[in-house]
Amino acid sequence: MPGTTPQPTSATRTRSWWGWGWADAHPDDAECAAMGALIPGTLAHPLPVPRVRDLGVGRPAVEPPASLAHLVATGPEERAAHAMGKAYRDVARALRGRPGRIPDLVARPTDEREVADMLDWAGEREVAVVPYGGGSSVSGGVEYRGDAHRAVLSLDMTAMDRVLEVDAVGRAARIQAGTLGPSLEDQLRPHGLTLRHFPQSFEFSTLGGWLATRAGGHYATGRTHIDDFVQSLRVVTPAGTSASWRLPASGAGPSPDRLFLGSEGALGIITEAWVRLQARPTHKASASLAFTDFHAALAAVRAIAQSDLAPANCRLLDAGEAALSGASHDGSAVLVLGFESADAPVTARLGQAVELARSHGGRRGDVDGAETADTDAAVGAWRSAFLRMPYLRDGLARMGAVAETFETAATWDRIPGLIEAVRTEVGQAALKASGHPATVNCRLTHVYPDGAAPYFTVLAAGRPGDEVAFWDDLKAVASDVLHRHRATITHHHAVGRDHRPGYDRQRPDPFALALRAAKGALDPRGILNPGVLVD
Amino acid sequence: MPGTTPQPTSATRTRSWWGWGWADAHPDDAECAAMGALIPGTLAHPLPVPRVRDLGVGRPAVEPPASLAHLVATGPEERAAHAMGKAYRDVARALRGRPGRIPDLVARPTDEREVADMLDWAGEREVAVVPYGGGSSVSGGVEYRGDAHRAVLSLDMTAMDRVLEVDAVGRAARIQAGTLGPSLEDQLRPHGLTLRHFPQSFEFSTLGGWLATRAGGHYATGRTHIDDFVQSLRVVTPAGTSASWRLPASGAGPSPDRLFLGSEGALGIITEAWVRLQARPTHKASASLAFTDFHAALAAVRAIAQSDLAPANCRLLDAGEAALSGASHDGSAVLVLGFESADAPVTARLGQAVELARSHGGRRGDVDGAETADTDAAVGAWRSAFLRMPYLRDGLARMGAVAETFETAATWDRIPGLIEAVRTEVGQAALKASGHPATVNCRLTHVYPDGAAPYFTVLAAGRPGDEVAFWDDLKAVASDVLHRHRATITHHHAVGRDHRPGYDRQRPDPFALALRAAKGALDPRGILNPGVLVD
Repeated sequence: MPGTTPQPTSATRTRSWWGWGWADAHPDDAECAAMGALIPGTLAHPLPVPRVRDLGVGRPAVEPPASLAHLVATGPEERAAHAMGKAYRDVARALRGRPGRIPDLVARPTDEREVADMLDWAGEREVAVVPYGGGSSVSGGVEYRGDAHRAVLSLDMTAMDRVLEVDAVGRAARIQAGTLGPSLEDQLRPHGLTLRHFPQSFEFSTLGGWLATRAGGHYATGRTHIDDFVQSLRVVTPAGTSASWRLPASGAGPSPDRLFLGSEGALGIITEAWVRLQARPTHKASASLAFTDFHAALAAVRAIAQSDLAPANCRLLDAGEAALSGASHDGSAVLVLGFESADAPVTARLGQAVELARSHGGRRGDVDGAETADTDAAVGAWRSAFLRMPYLRDGLARMGAVAETFETAATWDRIPGLIEAVRTEVGQAALKASGHPATVNCRLTHVYPDGAAPYFTVLAAGRPGDEVAFWDDLKAVASDVLHRHRATITHHHAVGRDHRPGYDRQRPDPFALALRAAKGALDPRGILNPGVLVD
Repeated sequence: MPGTTPQPTSATRTRSWWGWGWADAHPDDAECAAMGALIPGTLAHPLPVPRVRDLGVGRPAVEPPASLAHLVATGPEERAAHAMGKAYRDVARALRGRPGRIPDLVARPTDEREVADMLDWAGEREVAVVPYGGGSSVSGGVEYRGDAHRAVLSLDMTAMDRVLEVDAVGRAARIQAGTLGPSLEDQLRPHGLTLRHFPQSFEFSTLGGWLATRAGGHYATGRTHIDDFVQSLRVVTPAGTSASWRLPASGAGPSPDRLFLGSEGALGIITEAWVRLQARPTHKASASLAFTDFHAALAAVRAIAQSDLAPANCRLLDAGEAALSGASHDGSAVLVLGFESADAPVTARLGQAVELARSHGGRRGDVDGAETADTDAAVGAWRSAFLRMPYLRDGLARMGAVAETFETAATWDRIPGLIEAVRTEVGQAALKASGHPATVNCRLTHVYPDGAAPYFTVLAAGRPGDEVAFWDDLKAVASDVLHRHRATITHHHAVGRDHRPGYDRQRPDPFALALRAAKGALDPRGILNPGVLVD
């Protein structure tokens, strides 16, 4: 409209090299200071936005081969932007001018042949290859550590960003791995179809990244992970290209796709996949309920998860999380329920779920517990806080504060004790290490008939100047609690490098043997994302 | 009741060593002859029921170790009963007195320690270990072929047959691998819970067998395979025992359980699993619809599979299959729909599915197309024929006829052409090889938004005296059709030894490399079910 400011588009905006998302979406100094003032013990002034030129990025240790040079960037800005993912500890390191090892080269292959050529060249030269999609890893998945390789190549897949084929009858599409979430949905929209995979990182993550990390998506129940949407995969390995058949299901031996799903670049480079799509939902309904008693809310969620109702959204925020996102301010926990369908109205299903929740003490409606029909406020408040959160986290990091999340999953019998132990032990560890009390909140993001996935948010003053070690200490405490409660080290954030100790304790030893042998067969020179999953 | 004949129970009945199920349930000579008379070109008189004493079973090539001898049977009856599975080709071989290699020993361990001890001993002595559950393999999964090992041990797991633990809150149970279907459900019943996994072999197959072969279960949509019900596994391998954590979901690396699911005993011996249970359904409703046009029926099934309706049963019988099972006699295809829930009535969902089917030309009701409310006749006729089928198959085999099935899965775009090609090419091959026309029928057993699982029945006069080669020829033709149409070599009957050629062509080469390496790491002496999956 005339007179309005044009909205920035992805073509005109710049990605932050050191923090989440778009550089122009970060809170400014005043906002950072205002946020920091809410947390006793933070810095008086925000740390400056870090600059690449202060890093003293050196010359690459290797030259790209002439035949591939046109695909390779060697400038400091590009290389710094590919040095790390977007975890709090990555941001904190960047803010202190100590990012992870800067890759020597950033390559952007445009087809599978070029990916294979890159791997061939890297194998000959002992160059580590770290696959890179949207770069939103929060577990150290896209960062080289150590010095066992001559050089490091960041293999940025985002030039392979097309939907190649759509099967409208069988509702599936063949999509290149480097396709970012918004582009993927834009390309499917003309077909009336959607993948409906919306992780928090949607804007800044790719199909290949989702597949390699077993990302959690849109659905709170049922098909919670991208795994269930995979029909077939193409994966380039140093030992050849693996291409599975498009199949709706198969019982022919262990699933080939399931070996590559979650392989985090350690077994090969996923180049494309056939994925299952859905009609766009036309019926939607949502509601929120407040609970005075968190344990009653847990029982309600379990009852819903064990019913046939299959909500698309079933998110339980504890009191702290509800307050933080503006969904409640009276100490209530809040359950947000959402149903959707392309077929038929969902209000009846919503009604049944609400009744189930009420039978466990849930109060329909607004934050004060009044019964109202309009619950969009709580739902909307939650969604907007959800997408804004990583930017605020970076703003708080500039104040020396820790704002970080981690997630897990466990069976129902362990859920109450697990949540309590994480709150208590991480809170105590933060207090002891910083002298200031910390906030540890919890929400359930995905629920199952047999368990749930708690997602924790930690807000703490930190130990200014020593932020990374402070966080690593808290994370070690958290990981110990998870291990003691037999809760997985990650439900959908991948293992990367940060979760290796917890992962190594969790996975069965014979499986580790098998995985190491598989890696040895597919990546005999050990160039693929070294340090991830196996050594 | 006084005066009635007591029903035989599993304690008093004898399993057939050469054919399906209970020895006393097999059709007698007169019934066999009557069936044979329906198929031109079969034998005039049934082949005699084979006797173990005619096999000339020799002495075992090895002695069991003294410490384990009490677990080991060496008698000819036991060993012959463990020589093969229950495919048509197994029955045909037994009828001609040429069964597969008779194992030297049959061991029945009672705990995990004894399983490990057996593997240790077998590894030292170069004895092949073939795991055996209910023995209902129809793909050569429980049979040793070749002579690369000094001796063969059939590891019968059925002494490990208990439900060890039930988590009523999280609806899960820890169950030993050797538990047969009926016993498993009997042990769960007092808890009001059920696994609801009912393959056709239910009575004669075990949890461990289902897991090792990725068995197809009760549900026609959604969670069609046992895979989705697995919380954790314990697997004894020569390299140690793999024990995964009980988790509702995880994103920590490739799934350890998914490597062992479908591993068919080649990577280890599954000893127990935590599996997800459900409340017993209290609401059920079913209906059948007749279709004049099979392609219209396919479109109806696809529409239902792509809806939210999630029928528990959605079985489409083509005209021949419908006639064979008594569900229709007018050349109509029949769609049998079933819904169930432990929560709420399902009549509305059934009604919506029926409406969808009618909008594609389905006629509600009886075989003649009249509209009736009672459709139990077609449903009941189908179910009883389904369970009786393997016994009839063995009766026909005694007449020299081939009655066998095979199944696959493919995406919707390939389904019509695939079904047509199987019917035509297998039919032509049978005619050419035997001089008699054959019947090739098809049903869809499981349906998905993106495809379906066709299940084929072949009825042919065979080539008396040369039955096995005749069937192998037909199966090779069928496998070629599947390969050409990129349909999986098996949807839920496992690879075993019979499907190896198709499997080897289907699986990606790099995955084969990885699997072989994994096997090398877990089973360095190659004693575990040699010939299955990898060489």
